[in-house]
Amino acid sequence: MNIDRIVAAAKRLAGHALRTPLLNAPFLDETAGRRVLVKAECLQRTGSFKYRGARSALSVLSGNARERGVLAFSSGNHAQGVACAAREMGVPAVVVMPSDAPALKIANTRAYGAEVVLYDRATEDRDAIGTALAEERDLALVKPFDNEDVIAGQGTCGLEIAEQASEAGIGEADVLIPCGGGGLSSGIALALEARAPHLRVRPVEPEGFDDVARSLIAGTPQVNARMAGSICDAIVTPTPGQLTFPILKRLCGPGIAVPDEDALRAVAEAFTRLRIVLEPGGAVALAAALFHPEDDRDVIVVASGGNVDSTVFRNALNLLGKAV
Amino acid sequence: MNIDRIVAAAKRLAGHALRTPLLNAPFLDETAGRRVLVKAECLQRTGSFKYRGARSALSVLSGNARERGVLAFSSGNHAQGVACAAREMGVPAVVVMPSDAPALKIANTRAYGAEVVLYDRATEDRDAIGTALAEERDLALVKPFDNEDVIAGQGTCGLEIAEQASEAGIGEADVLIPCGGGGLSSGIALALEARAPHLRVRPVEPEGFDDVARSLIAGTPQVNARMAGSICDAIVTPTPGQLTFPILKRLCGPGIAVPDEDALRAVAEAFTRLRIVLEPGGAVALAAALFHPEDDRDVIVVASGGNVDSTVFRNALNLLGKAV
Repeated sequence: MNIDRIVAAAKRLAGHALRTPLLNAPFLDETAGRRVLVKAECLQRTGSFKYRGARSALSVLSGNARERGVLAFSSGNHAQGVACAAREMGVPAVVVMPSDAPALKIANTRAYGAEVVLYDRATEDRDAIGTALAEERDLALVKPFDNEDVIAGQGTCGLEIAEQASEAGIGEADVLIPCGGGGLSSGIALALEARAPHLRVRPVEPEGFDDVARSLIAGTPQVNARMAGSICDAIVTPTPGQLTFPILKRLCGPGIAVPDEDALRAVAEAFTRLRIVLEPGGAVALAAALFHPEDDRDVIVVASGGNVDSTVFRNALNLLGKAV
Repeated sequence: MNIDRIVAAAKRLAGHALRTPLLNAPFLDETAGRRVLVKAECLQRTGSFKYRGARSALSVLSGNARERGVLAFSSGNHAQGVACAAREMGVPAVVVMPSDAPALKIANTRAYGAEVVLYDRATEDRDAIGTALAEERDLALVKPFDNEDVIAGQGTCGLEIAEQASEAGIGEADVLIPCGGGGLSSGIALALEARAPHLRVRPVEPEGFDDVARSLIAGTPQVNARMAGSICDAIVTPTPGQLTFPILKRLCGPGIAVPDEDALRAVAEAFTRLRIVLEPGGAVALAAALFHPEDDRDVIVVASGGNVDSTVFRNALNLLGKAV
């Protein structure tokens, strides 16, 4: 994996993925006590950065593989990314999703034309269901992060950050990134290593699901005790990826963990101050920047996704003062 | 007024105003039965396009005038644009706002450091209050739309639309624009006349406040019967501007009027499909594109503002089905 792979992915994504804006707001700077710039990946096609990796991976499949179709496992954002890219490219897609995934994510994945297979997290074996389907129909598995073309696709977000940070006159700064399996963090870190080495990537996770932060300290992959129990569904993963962890270990850290309530407060701040819609898992990096500042250096935050059920969003709005 | 004036404003705004993205979503296209592209001005600094015109106008004031300060009348978005630009440039600002303006807009205007003077729409004379203040302190009045530098500033949004429509491969298309006094519509129309004459500007207003649509039909300025009673507070104005109407008459139309409930439905669609936060007045053009299609040609929609109180936003979320 290197920068050439990311540049090649950027060429494949041109005209498909959006160059998302780097937003700022004086009021956020005041709350954080430092300059905060927000890379709004919630505005990406399908509402999260996952479209980048999905389109990147699908676009390197052979013609035969495209005809047979693809399979993905996902609680939602990778599902939508794969389903949307597959539809654009005329590729059949099957997505295996937990039955307790957010309703909006399941509905959107179906609406993009993918066949959605639901399973019960408590009683059914996701891998067994997926493997049987993949073998039966000879589908290509598109992993959510342990796939070099997916990592390269997510890395295109890092190419944009390097350019936009330069335009904004940002010097040394931390880049805070919501982190599940580490595909986005590792892809961006590789891009910044080549294009903006003065920017340091720091993965952000929900408290109780900080496997990456703990793995970076330990130097070996650590596993979360639980697989559910956070509102940040998009970034709850058991352990760092096999391909992503060596990159994270070499280039990223230290990690940061934030409580769910701060993720929800960050969703509310993004509503009021940036006029973007975030899901809690997509808002943990903003939460870290606003509510857990460690110093007063400029900070770039990736707002990674905005596919949120309205009930959750209402809970965030309830945290706003009466005045707004 | 011509394109040179707009290009000059764009130079003054460079590095200050954001080049807002032109968003799209497959599901919106399906709802509308045609391709819908959304110019997300709610992401502009201060949450609306008004920052463009305010910064443009303030940046041509003499040094002496800047020292004395500026005065603006506004129910909210022009207020925030003037207050924010004034703070950036070290110019004192006084803003006269109706006491029933949205709480968020009043709070933000104050937070940008402007002196806010509230008046009662029913019993007090806004112009008398403003004129007395302006004379007493020798302040420069920054009108919300009847000012050539303001129109030129809003026109910079049109320069971007011309470029972005070309990148997106858009041919002949309507450009639907939320319209109050006509500053944004006339500025964009002038930019498109020079840079993309195949794009036609159509002003969109709330039902019952469609003075521009009726004026375009009559050929002379018409006046609304009421000055309150729509949730689209940002675009309720009595009659087209003296500078804007001749431009609107030459380049724009026919106008479109949409009911308040469709504006609110469009706010909900923007939440789910585009992950942007819109205020009802900023969503009327999207409402026209989605719920009042007249043909199947591509359509570009300006989403002009996103400063919305959470209570109004909750009303929009209530319109979503149970599934999301």
